[in-house]
Amino acid sequence: MANSNRLLSTFVKIRSNKLFELAVISVIIGSALLVGAKTFQLSPMATQVLGWFDVAVTLFFLTEITIRYIAHENKRTFFKDPWNVFDTLVVVISIVPVSHSETALVARLVRVFRVLRMISIIPELRMLLNSLIKALPQLGYVLLLMFIIFYVYAAVGATLFAQINPELWGDVAISMLTLFRVMTFEDWTDVMYETMKVYPLSWTFYLSFIFLTAFAFLNMVIGIVVNVMNAENERILKLEAEERNEPTIADLKAELEQIRALLEKR
Amino acid sequence: MANSNRLLSTFVKIRSNKLFELAVISVIIGSALLVGAKTFQLSPMATQVLGWFDVAVTLFFLTEITIRYIAHENKRTFFKDPWNVFDTLVVVISIVPVSHSETALVARLVRVFRVLRMISIIPELRMLLNSLIKALPQLGYVLLLMFIIFYVYAAVGATLFAQINPELWGDVAISMLTLFRVMTFEDWTDVMYETMKVYPLSWTFYLSFIFLTAFAFLNMVIGIVVNVMNAENERILKLEAEERNEPTIADLKAELEQIRALLEKR
Amino acid sequence: MANSNRLLSTFVKIRSNKLFELAVISVIIGSALLVGAKTFQLSPMATQVLGWFDVAVTLFFLTEITIRYIAHENKRTFFKDPWNVFDTLVVVISIVPVSHSETALVARLVRVFRVLRMISIIPELRMLLNSLIKALPQLGYVLLLMFIIFYVYAAVGATLFAQINPELWGDVAISMLTLFRVMTFEDWTDVMYETMKVYPLSWTFYLSFIFLTAFAFLNMVIGIVVNVMNAENERILKLEAEERNEPTIADLKAELEQIRALLEKR
Amino acid sequence: MANSNRLLSTFVKIRSNKLFELAVISVIIGSALLVGAKTFQLSPMATQVLGWFDVAVTLFFLTEITIRYIAHENKRTFFKDPWNVFDTLVVVISIVPVSHSETALVARLVRVFRVLRMISIIPELRMLLNSLIKALPQLGYVLLLMFIIFYVYAAVGATLFAQINPELWGDVAISMLTLFRVMTFEDWTDVMYETMKVYPLSWTFYLSFIFLTAFAFLNMVIGIVVNVMNAENERILKLEAEERNEPTIADLKAELEQIRALLEKR
Repeated sequence: MANSNRLLSTFVKIRSNKLFELAVISVIIGSALLVGAKTFQLSPMATQVLGWFDVAVTLFFLTEITIRYIAHENKRTFFKDPWNVFDTLVVVISIVPVSHSETALVARLVRVFRVLRMISIIPELRMLLNSLIKALPQLGYVLLLMFIIFYVYAAVGATLFAQINPELWGDVAISMLTLFRVMTFEDWTDVMYETMKVYPLSWTFYLSFIFLTAFAFLNMVIGIVVNVMNAENERILKLEAEERNEPTIADLKAELEQIRALLEKR
Repeated sequence: MANSNRLLSTFVKIRSNKLFELAVISVIIGSALLVGAKTFQLSPMATQVLGWFDVAVTLFFLTEITIRYIAHENKRTFFKDPWNVFDTLVVVISIVPVSHSETALVARLVRVFRVLRMISIIPELRMLLNSLIKALPQLGYVLLLMFIIFYVYAAVGATLFAQINPELWGDVAISMLTLFRVMTFEDWTDVMYETMKVYPLSWTFYLSFIFLTAFAFLNMVIGIVVNVMNAENERILKLEAEERNEPTIADLKAELEQIRALLEKR
Repeated sequence: MANSNRLLSTFVKIRSNKLFELAVISVIIGSALLVGAKTFQLSPMATQVLGWFDVAVTLFFLTEITIRYIAHENKRTFFKDPWNVFDTLVVVISIVPVSHSETALVARLVRVFRVLRMISIIPELRMLLNSLIKALPQLGYVLLLMFIIFYVYAAVGATLFAQINPELWGDVAISMLTLFRVMTFEDWTDVMYETMKVYPLSWTFYLSFIFLTAFAFLNMVIGIVVNVMNAENERILKLEAEERNEPTIADLKAELEQIRALLEKR
Repeated sequence: MANSNRLLSTFVKIRSNKLFELAVISVIIGSALLVGAKTFQLSPMATQVLGWFDVAVTLFFLTEITIRYIAHENKRTFFKDPWNVFDTLVVVISIVPVSHSETALVARLVRVFRVLRMISIIPELRMLLNSLIKALPQLGYVLLLMFIIFYVYAAVGATLFAQINPELWGDVAISMLTLFRVMTFEDWTDVMYETMKVYPLSWTFYLSFIFLTAFAFLNMVIGIVVNVMNAENERILKLEAEERNEPTIADLKAELEQIRALLEKR
């Protein structure tokens, strides 16, 4: 019992150690370089060396996540933090032995996701990602509106143009991909000129779509800018008020009323 | 008479029923999926089943709009709401029997517009669309200016380049479409290099056009941002003033004048 | 003398007449449609009719500008307004007789510029254009910086890549056009892949250029937004102050000092 | 000693001379034109004349930098200004004699950088560039996040698509270049359609990448706008407060407290 406690406190010490953190970041960067290096044409020698490094990184990550888990005060809440779940998943899937043929590709892809541990380990990046995710729901209804616009235009496109070019307008799903292409202005005139040979007025279809999506997108961006600015302004106003500790107009009013009372009493 | 009144109140109850609203939304989503499903290659069996579903949806919508119309207090104002007009039109046109050849395409397109009922049924989307439409007139003069720029450049382009490539510069209408393409940077250099072989200085035509439209567009966007921000700021200032119920400088001034009067009287 | 005065006052009356203004706008719109109509393939009959209309429009504009000139109080300041100079030039050049071959094209182009009279006649568009022109000098130094960036990259490009593709990098002028194309992302990878075959590191040239120009452009846009917003805010603050006619803090201070003087005097 | 002092003061006078500054700017513009002129096809005569001009410019720059160095109060701090280091480097490298074959290209490129002296000589451009450079570190973490996104997608792309098209997805470095191309929407559908033939679901790869980068980029831009606006607002508020020299609410409070003391004393 005493032994296990001593071990626990050692683990907690290790986790909080600056050197340990530095080692983890170094190994993560190393594993990122490893992932990149594997995509190059390599000699068999180099491939083998990289394979050894890979095993070393996997073992290090396994040890690290074990230390973190043991050092965690409450074992039950450990997996409530999505970052811990992510870290554990990446490590565990790396260990699962894979046959060389089919699942090897999946195993390599899992190793790629190790690079994302960079985000989980650097607090500033975690905050940035969290703020990006927090901004998403604000866009909910605009995204729904855009999806409806896409769906309606895709259904019209698939109904009218499917015979003209089934590769672009074959069904509603392909049509939505084609419309996304039109929205990014990627060779959209080629798409248009093709349908204009059959339906000369089909330019109205494309132009109205471009205007609608551009306008909705613009509105979305402006909405976010306004939200961010307001939040920022409120934060600054609060900070300033706290810093200066300046009397408000309400304070002055109270002061004046006291003076008046003094005068009237006499 | 009593009978008809009882029927009316039943209809009003149905309309306000949560389950009824849910059913309507479900059927709209179902009809949207139906529209999408029809664009895929289907077995004759599936086509027939979808056809039955289609009839069911049409009947449901017909029933729904009838209930709404009967439950509406004032029959005359029902069609003053553009959303009601839209809903009714979509349903009525669906019922009109069509021969299989020519108008079948039109009938399918009308069914696509049923998806837009999604916007009319979700209040948040209606508000969003209304605010988008409200923002349009602000842009009136900038859009007119842009149209004039387009028209002038299209007229110049059609005058100078019609012989070089009639497909792009044949007349003023085609030229405007080509200029829109240039504005979206879609293979605009192909268009330019072609005319530069005949008029080596024609790059000035394209560059001045790009600068003018980009500049006007930028101004338009900034104009909207400023308008939105000002409206937002005003709304916030009003809200804050109401919340705090804080005395204004004018209140202080009045207070001070009363004190002075008190002093001078003595 | 009295006769000429009576004529003058008649002209002033005509100029201020609502019907006259309406007629001018109608004829300008008509001449714009004329310009557009001429770009289409026309029967000889139609061409002749349009020719007559053209003469009529020219005569109308000549009459109009004469009336404006005569009705103008001070003949010397008439041509100080650039819009008047523009209107007169467009009319005068239209009258100059042209031989059918060479200068016919120029004559047709001058007629196109009549469309721009739309801007000079609608006050809102004039204001819009003026505000656009006013915004330009603010951008002076950023545009100069961008020009230097373009020039340096064009000189480097012409030095390194002239042998690879003289059509794109032949001299510093052509290189600047190619770089503008790269900035608009128009098939820029085709340009890059071509030079990367000779200089494998030339992607650094393109990426650094894109980052520099995008960054400078972004800064420019933000600069304009900030300027516009500040101007707008100041305008609003002034308006509000005028509207409310609210006492300022300085007013309160003065009031307080008088009260104090009253108290101390006793 | 006295002689050297007299020489020094002469140099300081020259440096501060308006004519000297004008001459420097003229020569810099001249050298910029020289750089541009050399990229055109020239007759041997013209090439020789330009060569002489080149020598003249080099000698002038050498003299100028020598005068600046001698006139500088503290010789040690001269090279602490990065602009001085830049100017000296450009001049010194120009003097190094080069054989005509290999290093001639490098020599020509160094001459191109003389154009950048335009930025070092015009104070407004220096300020502009400084402010651009100052804005960079703010973007640090967003740029790091974007790099990680690029790296992960490039590693996934190189793992999955390397066999499909080694020219686009051969290794992680080439894949990052391809992804940058996708981000600029440059023929990105060609890249996508190619991989969709093997992996039909690979459109998710491209769309998720486009959304992630566009969203991160948008956030970055908004971040900068907010920062710039806040800095600007603070600057204006300070300026206004200084200009008006208006009493603050705190001043009023102090005044009121004095009045109250006066009243209570009696």
